[in-house]
Amino acid sequence: MPMADESVHESCAVFGIHGHDEAANLTYLGLYALQHRGQESSGIVASDGERVHSEIGMGHVADIFDEERLSKLGGHMAIGHNRYSTAGQSGITNAQPFLIDHSRGILALGHNGNLVNAARLRRELEEKGSIFRSTTDSEVILHLIARSSEEDTEHAIADALNHLEGAFTLTMMTRDLLIGVRDPHGFRPLVLGKIANNRGEPAWVMASETCALDLIEAEFEREILPGEMLIVDENGPRSIFPFPPSQPKQCIFEFIYFARPDSHIFGDDVYSVRRELGVQLARENPVDADMVIPVPDSGLAVATGYAAESGLPMEMGLVRNHYVGRTFIEPQNAIRNFGVKVKLNPMRSFLEGKRVVVVDDSIVRGTTSLKIVDMIRQAGAIKVHMRISSPPITSPCYYGIDMPTHDELIASSNSIEEIRAHLLTDSLAYLSLEGLMKCVAPREGDFCTSCFNGIYPVPVEFKDAQLPLFRELRTSEHRA
Amino acid sequence: MPMADESVHESCAVFGIHGHDEAANLTYLGLYALQHRGQESSGIVASDGERVHSEIGMGHVADIFDEERLSKLGGHMAIGHNRYSTAGQSGITNAQPFLIDHSRGILALGHNGNLVNAARLRRELEEKGSIFRSTTDSEVILHLIARSSEEDTEHAIADALNHLEGAFTLTMMTRDLLIGVRDPHGFRPLVLGKIANNRGEPAWVMASETCALDLIEAEFEREILPGEMLIVDENGPRSIFPFPPSQPKQCIFEFIYFARPDSHIFGDDVYSVRRELGVQLARENPVDADMVIPVPDSGLAVATGYAAESGLPMEMGLVRNHYVGRTFIEPQNAIRNFGVKVKLNPMRSFLEGKRVVVVDDSIVRGTTSLKIVDMIRQAGAIKVHMRISSPPITSPCYYGIDMPTHDELIASSNSIEEIRAHLLTDSLAYLSLEGLMKCVAPREGDFCTSCFNGIYPVPVEFKDAQLPLFRELRTSEHRA
Amino acid sequence: MPMADESVHESCAVFGIHGHDEAANLTYLGLYALQHRGQESSGIVASDGERVHSEIGMGHVADIFDEERLSKLGGHMAIGHNRYSTAGQSGITNAQPFLIDHSRGILALGHNGNLVNAARLRRELEEKGSIFRSTTDSEVILHLIARSSEEDTEHAIADALNHLEGAFTLTMMTRDLLIGVRDPHGFRPLVLGKIANNRGEPAWVMASETCALDLIEAEFEREILPGEMLIVDENGPRSIFPFPPSQPKQCIFEFIYFARPDSHIFGDDVYSVRRELGVQLARENPVDADMVIPVPDSGLAVATGYAAESGLPMEMGLVRNHYVGRTFIEPQNAIRNFGVKVKLNPMRSFLEGKRVVVVDDSIVRGTTSLKIVDMIRQAGAIKVHMRISSPPITSPCYYGIDMPTHDELIASSNSIEEIRAHLLTDSLAYLSLEGLMKCVAPREGDFCTSCFNGIYPVPVEFKDAQLPLFRELRTSEHRA
Amino acid sequence: MPMADESVHESCAVFGIHGHDEAANLTYLGLYALQHRGQESSGIVASDGERVHSEIGMGHVADIFDEERLSKLGGHMAIGHNRYSTAGQSGITNAQPFLIDHSRGILALGHNGNLVNAARLRRELEEKGSIFRSTTDSEVILHLIARSSEEDTEHAIADALNHLEGAFTLTMMTRDLLIGVRDPHGFRPLVLGKIANNRGEPAWVMASETCALDLIEAEFEREILPGEMLIVDENGPRSIFPFPPSQPKQCIFEFIYFARPDSHIFGDDVYSVRRELGVQLARENPVDADMVIPVPDSGLAVATGYAAESGLPMEMGLVRNHYVGRTFIEPQNAIRNFGVKVKLNPMRSFLEGKRVVVVDDSIVRGTTSLKIVDMIRQAGAIKVHMRISSPPITSPCYYGIDMPTHDELIASSNSIEEIRAHLLTDSLAYLSLEGLMKCVAPREGDFCTSCFNGIYPVPVEFKDAQLPLFRELRTSEHRA
Repeated sequence: MPMADESVHESCAVFGIHGHDEAANLTYLGLYALQHRGQESSGIVASDGERVHSEIGMGHVADIFDEERLSKLGGHMAIGHNRYSTAGQSGITNAQPFLIDHSRGILALGHNGNLVNAARLRRELEEKGSIFRSTTDSEVILHLIARSSEEDTEHAIADALNHLEGAFTLTMMTRDLLIGVRDPHGFRPLVLGKIANNRGEPAWVMASETCALDLIEAEFEREILPGEMLIVDENGPRSIFPFPPSQPKQCIFEFIYFARPDSHIFGDDVYSVRRELGVQLARENPVDADMVIPVPDSGLAVATGYAAESGLPMEMGLVRNHYVGRTFIEPQNAIRNFGVKVKLNPMRSFLEGKRVVVVDDSIVRGTTSLKIVDMIRQAGAIKVHMRISSPPITSPCYYGIDMPTHDELIASSNSIEEIRAHLLTDSLAYLSLEGLMKCVAPREGDFCTSCFNGIYPVPVEFKDAQLPLFRELRTSEHRA
Repeated sequence: MPMADESVHESCAVFGIHGHDEAANLTYLGLYALQHRGQESSGIVASDGERVHSEIGMGHVADIFDEERLSKLGGHMAIGHNRYSTAGQSGITNAQPFLIDHSRGILALGHNGNLVNAARLRRELEEKGSIFRSTTDSEVILHLIARSSEEDTEHAIADALNHLEGAFTLTMMTRDLLIGVRDPHGFRPLVLGKIANNRGEPAWVMASETCALDLIEAEFEREILPGEMLIVDENGPRSIFPFPPSQPKQCIFEFIYFARPDSHIFGDDVYSVRRELGVQLARENPVDADMVIPVPDSGLAVATGYAAESGLPMEMGLVRNHYVGRTFIEPQNAIRNFGVKVKLNPMRSFLEGKRVVVVDDSIVRGTTSLKIVDMIRQAGAIKVHMRISSPPITSPCYYGIDMPTHDELIASSNSIEEIRAHLLTDSLAYLSLEGLMKCVAPREGDFCTSCFNGIYPVPVEFKDAQLPLFRELRTSEHRA
Repeated sequence: MPMADESVHESCAVFGIHGHDEAANLTYLGLYALQHRGQESSGIVASDGERVHSEIGMGHVADIFDEERLSKLGGHMAIGHNRYSTAGQSGITNAQPFLIDHSRGILALGHNGNLVNAARLRRELEEKGSIFRSTTDSEVILHLIARSSEEDTEHAIADALNHLEGAFTLTMMTRDLLIGVRDPHGFRPLVLGKIANNRGEPAWVMASETCALDLIEAEFEREILPGEMLIVDENGPRSIFPFPPSQPKQCIFEFIYFARPDSHIFGDDVYSVRRELGVQLARENPVDADMVIPVPDSGLAVATGYAAESGLPMEMGLVRNHYVGRTFIEPQNAIRNFGVKVKLNPMRSFLEGKRVVVVDDSIVRGTTSLKIVDMIRQAGAIKVHMRISSPPITSPCYYGIDMPTHDELIASSNSIEEIRAHLLTDSLAYLSLEGLMKCVAPREGDFCTSCFNGIYPVPVEFKDAQLPLFRELRTSEHRA
Repeated sequence: MPMADESVHESCAVFGIHGHDEAANLTYLGLYALQHRGQESSGIVASDGERVHSEIGMGHVADIFDEERLSKLGGHMAIGHNRYSTAGQSGITNAQPFLIDHSRGILALGHNGNLVNAARLRRELEEKGSIFRSTTDSEVILHLIARSSEEDTEHAIADALNHLEGAFTLTMMTRDLLIGVRDPHGFRPLVLGKIANNRGEPAWVMASETCALDLIEAEFEREILPGEMLIVDENGPRSIFPFPPSQPKQCIFEFIYFARPDSHIFGDDVYSVRRELGVQLARENPVDADMVIPVPDSGLAVATGYAAESGLPMEMGLVRNHYVGRTFIEPQNAIRNFGVKVKLNPMRSFLEGKRVVVVDDSIVRGTTSLKIVDMIRQAGAIKVHMRISSPPITSPCYYGIDMPTHDELIASSNSIEEIRAHLLTDSLAYLSLEGLMKCVAPREGDFCTSCFNGIYPVPVEFKDAQLPLFRELRTSEHRA
């Protein structure tokens, strides 16, 4: 799924830091390292305990923040957020972190995940007179906190969290506190790190993935646990567990595709898991061929494992254009469907007359895979075998991943053989769910695999969870 | 007060229209005609009864709206707003019209005036769990409506209005209704007009002043009355009077300075009133001189009256630069205080050796007048007499005019002779309050003259009404 | 011609300064004061004798230059330019001052006026291998200088100037010198001023009009003479006269409309001349009426004279919107022809039932006058007499004024009675050419009156002088 | 040299097309595919034989061109250019293609390479009166053409080309012709392709590399030869050879680093050559280790060859951040030197306790390599061997590659052992020049290897070729 940006999107990245004079700078770097988790908007809220300042914009981290904007974000505390919209329309009013000033003072919030009861909560809150400014599920959390009868912020937050159902990894900031939360199932990752500040004291960092800690050279401390609410103040971190005990249901797709390969989450190194998926894939589905071709870049780790296990040489038969991160405007009247071609070009001289195993991590709609296979065949390959390091995706995700609807998932209504025939490959094999689970053993039960087997650990009120949030669907607002 | 933009600012302009296919275009034109009432931000919300779209920006009407933005504002209803901040910090989050989506549906609001009990209302609402998105007094109105126990929007609005104290001229828009409100004292003007739509049916227009009707060639119907709530739906306008009966207290300063000279408000033509002020001024304070010099452009009407009554010739002894409407960035290290010089240049050849009567409409801080007198003297005038067409301003306004504080008003602590000595004029005379009242006879009692005599028709909770709105004064947010 | 921006445009403003540490700041102020002479683009080139820096943009002076751009313009010398295109298409590549680096070093140039032999010169230069970067006549001057066989810059410039025919007021800057030039006929004005620098030494200033000197508080020294080339170096100014002696032919239209009323040019105060035109107009064309109505703002001075001479009262029967300087985007589908309405609004209460004399300075196409007359009549005036303070414009200008073509000038093919009938006035009268000349006596011969009598002091090669510059008419280039 | 953007820059990309209705769209796509050859500016000039339009901007192709700009570029002919400045300062005035209008009509030019006699030619041209608008060597070509005594454009160009010395691959466009030129040594590549237009007729395409043909699905026809001038008109292409015969000296560094791996240039597939360099490197410099680690992405092909030949497994021990293409603003006060860290992150779990061979393509200054080695060691590797697929770079390039000066090249004054000690590697080995030549056998003599051995095929007038172009070095101009 190298073209995953066309099919499956991570919802968001969160980051938070307390106790460092360069809180906003480090948040900026952390968000930069977490860019892959959301490219629609990005924002930072920073505070010195008195002043609170927020800078939020549409687009990529590096495009939004310049020296001028960073210099306005003073203070020793900050939280940051990258967003890709899964619930709520896109637009600056939905960009996070949200910053409000309510009766208990300042409160900033960044949310990764998706609430499954947000529509009902919103309707109830509006009926009591609450006014929403965004169309996101995340804003519900703020109103629940504002209306809580608990006096202090900490208890009001814990109170509000207990109304939420679904996936929510949160970072929050008040005038004094940095707070990190993982929902009881721990769908999305959240890690804790430590970094010395200018006075040599420990500053505490929270981030969606460890790659953000690596960039700022913070030390990885531990993962925040499913159901944990971690509160950092001037005395350092302390934890409470506001939810009833629950079985963890961490998102297996983070391992397969979303998380950066150099991150460590859910107790494992992502690259190692992916390479192991390749090994397992080769064991389950060997094939006689001349070479293994990874679909760059997400197929690289898997292909390394597949090549090592199968003994076939790995060759870079598809070259990736380095500049594809940027927006590419297809000329209006031009030959269409440049989508894959602008990103990948096949190495004709290497593929000609060869039997190749193309290795990728998943198939969503199948449109990208179809183009890649076609591209490789036109470059002269005589056999094209496709190997996928995950089971078929048959069911949409309601916990924070922006997938196509059920009908658009090619595996929801087609057998593997039908998909093979559609993709025009000589053979097609997926990794089995059992094989996948072996690679994360012995903690199989701790993972959500609903996209592969349709078993949803938290009941979903609306199958299309997004719609009911918008009573006035066609409202739009532009302030600039 | 030709430089009034340096001293006294009108709070806002409102506009609304119902029943015309070019609702947003006409609103744009109306706001353009009302630009003098607020230059900080401008916005339009338009609706076809289904879709609602809002476009809001910082700056002048003509700079914010282009064809692209106007083309997005479809539908037969629209309200618009120009803002100059009197309560609440400046910034896009405070720009109006506000647009919310609450339990009764869409509601848009534009406000001209200043509430004197907003700080208390906000604190009470926040304690009940309301979250505010702006730092304006106007947002209080929305939360009161959202929390009203009345079922339908119309009654909920009437209910909410009864909690407000101070000055509020409002235009509101729901999915079906256009609503205009003047507070019981009618501090700020609001007029009703009629214009035929493309099918020849009447469309209804509300605007702060008639000059907006003139530009779009709408017919002036009548003024909306103090205490009136006028509701326009597909059957045309109807009125309710939700407030207890009250004595009108219309702002006399609208006549003296704010309103455009070509407008008709409060039952009179503004230019005629101003000219009459000049006549009265000449009667009360004649002087032996060679010519009358208006301070352009606001002194023009007064000077015409003064010249006619006194028999002295009027000469354009001060030339106004046509391009001063634009922002002028003074070079950092340059000779300072270009303020008046970039706007006015004296006609040396006309002033040399002359005894002149300089006519202006008011003196606020006195700084501008000082520079003008100096400029005229340096151009060679041998006698400079100053005549002002209003009484001394001794007290700040709490009903929607952005005036300096009490201490900055030169007349709050100086006698007329002291001011004369400060301005270095040979003589100085103000129009008397009685003289002023003669010009609006026989309705003297219907006007608020608090800035001249300190008698405030509505008690003011906080003398500096602005501060208590901001618990977190130093919070700022930038989304773009 | 209050709407002159719709019909007749001044070509340009020039400014130059030598010997002041704030050269660029003062140039910025000077250009701001000269904004009326050109609003398409503006630029400044500054130098400290070593570094040369140029900042040029499209639009108004105050919009182009901010602190950042001004701070880059260091040094004790600068020239500046406001442009309205008369020859050459509009666009940034045509914006001035031009800055080149040729074999004699740096040379910057700003030009006001129009060369009548530019097309021929350009063709000759291109045939010799010169490459033009703009489509202006002004660039010809640079190439002539670059190709001159004279060794030093001063003589090369004098050499080049002798090939030029038409109108050219120039400011130029080399590494050491500030140079000002008026063509032998002196079509366009250029004045010399003096201002003390930070060390109390005299710095020398050149500007199109004295209003620029007034703003920076420089002392008016004298006008630069027709045919004079004034060179300023560290020893102050010195003059040479590189042209054969010629009869001055200064543009009479500068007095009638273009120059700012507070400027002193061509030996006279502009406001005084205009007021005198009004006096003369009243003498030649009296009329029985109730009041004199100036078309603001250009008709103000004339109306003052007309009123004084006629004994009729002057009333502000037309109110000008202060914000018209800004671009006004007419909504696409709206009622059209807002042109005049957005700028002027009639005072109904003053005009109703009145016999009025509307005073304006000129009629070009007649479209604006038609709208004004209609506007006044609809406001209730029973008699509308129009009085114009210049003779009928019958012939286009080829010396730097952007006028309509011959056919578009209403007076080129219509008698005064026909124009009156077209404008629907009760009477119409123009000032006679003799009357006009009386007001500038005894120097009648020193003025170009070609637009009134078709007598062109310099023969024009192409009647439509603009076209032949563009061999590749449809080329366009956009660099940004 | 994965961080090559920090050390060595390709000069430029050129593209041209004749005979296709979507000429500009295809040029845009071609430039997008050639983005790696220049990221400073990009431009397209298009023509329908009558109109000529140019759009040029600073930055990346995908950021400069949007639908609006592309839609202005009509016609069946176009040339395009990506620039990285090697001669001449950066800035929009130096961005190409240049477009001029001279006595023979329109001429547009894009240049890849560097002239070594440009400074002298420019001085001579300026002394004859030519005015330069840019500070590039490329503009000299235009002036030589403009001044040629040959009558028709084709001969004038051939005449001008014979004055040039150094590296120049050009695409040019006149009103009728598309012209491509490679200098007699053919330093830079240029290929010819063919694509059917909407009427099924052949349209002809020129591009720096075949990857541009691949993206637009044009057929590769052949390479344009060193010394060839290929002219395309409505009858298709024809060639002339205007230069005296010469030995080809194609840039070997195109194979090592610059060209895209999926391109075919100089008679070979780039990826195959690079993989072969890896094979040869493993033969010359084997080492006992646990794995081969490519420096992504440029080291990938080499590492594949090295792994295959050595039998060691290849592992992705360094992970590349996909978003590094974008500008990254390092926070001002933050821990510095994020340079490499924001792009690469080591896989700790893979490297811990391992003996690794790090494979890269070249070492320029050594700063990036130092950081990479340090990063790998800190991740736990116990042995770090570095293998480089090119000889040490000892001498700067004067033919169009933006390399550091002689003193900044680490290999210009250090032995391999000194470099190894500096980089703190356990071993360091470069590919030998002989080994390199084997990989392009039997055409060794056809390549320029001056950066490895200091033997310059064309004498260089100024060793720092850039400086003499700027007489007025500190001049700058900003038009916007």
